[in-house]
Amino acid sequence: MTRYFSDKYKALTPYVPGEQPQDKQYIKLNTNESPFPPSPMAVEMASQEAGKLQLYSDPECRVLVQAAAETLGIAENKILFTNGSDEILNFAFMAFCDAEHPAVFPDITYGFYPVFAKLNGVPYREIPLKDDFTVDPEDYIGAGGTVFLANPNAPTGRALPLSEIERIVAGNPDNIVVIDEAYVDFGGESAVPLTEKYPNLLVTQTFSKSRSLAGGRLGMGIACPELIGDLNTVKYSTNPYNVNRMTMAAGIGALRDKAYFESNIREILRVRAWTTKSLESLGFTVLPSTANFVFVKSDRIGGEELYLRLKERGILIRHFTLPRIREFNRITIGSGGQMRDFIEAVRGILSETALDSVQDQK
Amino acid sequence: MTRYFSDKYKALTPYVPGEQPQDKQYIKLNTNESPFPPSPMAVEMASQEAGKLQLYSDPECRVLVQAAAETLGIAENKILFTNGSDEILNFAFMAFCDAEHPAVFPDITYGFYPVFAKLNGVPYREIPLKDDFTVDPEDYIGAGGTVFLANPNAPTGRALPLSEIERIVAGNPDNIVVIDEAYVDFGGESAVPLTEKYPNLLVTQTFSKSRSLAGGRLGMGIACPELIGDLNTVKYSTNPYNVNRMTMAAGIGALRDKAYFESNIREILRVRAWTTKSLESLGFTVLPSTANFVFVKSDRIGGEELYLRLKERGILIRHFTLPRIREFNRITIGSGGQMRDFIEAVRGILSETALDSVQDQK
Repeated sequence: MTRYFSDKYKALTPYVPGEQPQDKQYIKLNTNESPFPPSPMAVEMASQEAGKLQLYSDPECRVLVQAAAETLGIAENKILFTNGSDEILNFAFMAFCDAEHPAVFPDITYGFYPVFAKLNGVPYREIPLKDDFTVDPEDYIGAGGTVFLANPNAPTGRALPLSEIERIVAGNPDNIVVIDEAYVDFGGESAVPLTEKYPNLLVTQTFSKSRSLAGGRLGMGIACPELIGDLNTVKYSTNPYNVNRMTMAAGIGALRDKAYFESNIREILRVRAWTTKSLESLGFTVLPSTANFVFVKSDRIGGEELYLRLKERGILIRHFTLPRIREFNRITIGSGGQMRDFIEAVRGILSETALDSVQDQK
Repeated sequence: MTRYFSDKYKALTPYVPGEQPQDKQYIKLNTNESPFPPSPMAVEMASQEAGKLQLYSDPECRVLVQAAAETLGIAENKILFTNGSDEILNFAFMAFCDAEHPAVFPDITYGFYPVFAKLNGVPYREIPLKDDFTVDPEDYIGAGGTVFLANPNAPTGRALPLSEIERIVAGNPDNIVVIDEAYVDFGGESAVPLTEKYPNLLVTQTFSKSRSLAGGRLGMGIACPELIGDLNTVKYSTNPYNVNRMTMAAGIGALRDKAYFESNIREILRVRAWTTKSLESLGFTVLPSTANFVFVKSDRIGGEELYLRLKERGILIRHFTLPRIREFNRITIGSGGQMRDFIEAVRGILSETALDSVQDQK
């Protein structure tokens, strides 16, 4: 840190993205990427844009907004696109949080929320999840601040039904409620329809997971036109051309190719069910997941040890160090083949561990 | 504006990007884009990435950083890439400005600086350019705040020599000096070599102009490794995956294809000289430009009128409403053919205007 760095950020601890080691080819089950490439339509449309990059992108993302409005069945003026959904989340912390409007979110959730809060000098309150790692909606009625709820939640994978989300939104008429739906396409119920009724609801989604565009960086906010207006004031004061031409085109292709999207989702759900059953048969506790990952622990091996041993075998999963979840690991649902390799590796590690412990007892 | 919008932004007036009307095909000389498509190498490399977008981009942009380090002849740890250079400029306002470190910049310069200052709640001081629209270096010695200087400056096109930039950097040892080199490749002297010597210097560059990647969104900061470290703390707390895979690849291609880059620059300089001479022969005052645009005015027609009449004829130029420059227009140097059309249109408009005024006198 230099002496020039502003005092306001001196205590900032940045977010740590999932590791991407370059020493060898890993089976990557650590950052909830899709195992499937983007839709051929997305690839084709993005490639065609590459030759036109001398021209700025449309700051209003008009054609993309039209495609999204059609897909979601909502008006175009209810949509804002950003450089990944991290950007729309940061815009929400900027626009709707301050000393009088602290942020409120669960103790176990997307690790970027406290970072955004600190970045923006916003006080925040963490509400513990219940023992089963679900959100208790009662905790969020009259929350006294801007609510951020990932639904399904990460890294737990657990979701609230739409009726409970509606109770929370209705229960905070004087504050914004942000529902972060990064994983909603894998079995959650989207709160987008509620944006017709509640002026205090912002729904955020991403093209990184179900639409296979993590490396394209495309996020989306859905809210009533007036809230989108506030977010646009922030966007046009920060980075008006925030979405590049190629990603805009890829997003349009990804939205149009509905069949590809739906078939990928079906396959993820199939492989998730198989992975869950296989892990349970190995003695793991697997939280019920409506996301493209499972959150698991075992009495036979510690969370960190499993993570390290899998890494030795060329498989990356995500381990967190927060005390409450340090025996857990978050495992992205990859392709059927990747998950078979993963289960085989886990089986092998558990046998070794069992052997070690027999030898220890001798 | 909703009642939820944070008080801190209620007075914010966002930046207004150059217009991009969709009603017909314009000759666009209003946003300083390149008239040339990106290098075929950039197009090819970006297209190849489109099929891999299911995977996140490398937050460290390693391969791109290597290519830039090689091109600039500096160490890799002195470089940071962002989603356009607006993002690195905003990071600089965030990291190096606050109530104790106000921003200091010319009264006539890139219109985003005051917006960034207001966005970040940073006080700022505008120093008038001299009558000839040049920066007086004396005004910036011991500036008492973080200095932002576009060099060449926009929309004037006028540049300070490197020796004067060095005096300013050396004259503010306790403050950061940001030299915004968006247009440096068109005839300015880059301050990048000074980053070896001065720990308080940040140079920003963009791939939007000379490298034909405006629609890809790629900006770059160059500074000593410790300053880059501070900026990375901000980046990893804001949007770690801020540069997408396709743009990263396009940037590598653009850097590698040096011959294409240099030949485009030569052509812009040739057409700029021709445009300047042609405008002068029509009676225009043309400020000496080291950028890919010229800043001009005429005693025969007002700035706004010329802008409006050209727009009627399908040619967009940039008109500003600041009192001191409202008789001027900023005209991007397009291709030779575009500039011939532009000069013809101006000639036609001036004849009409002369005719009007003869008729008025009758």
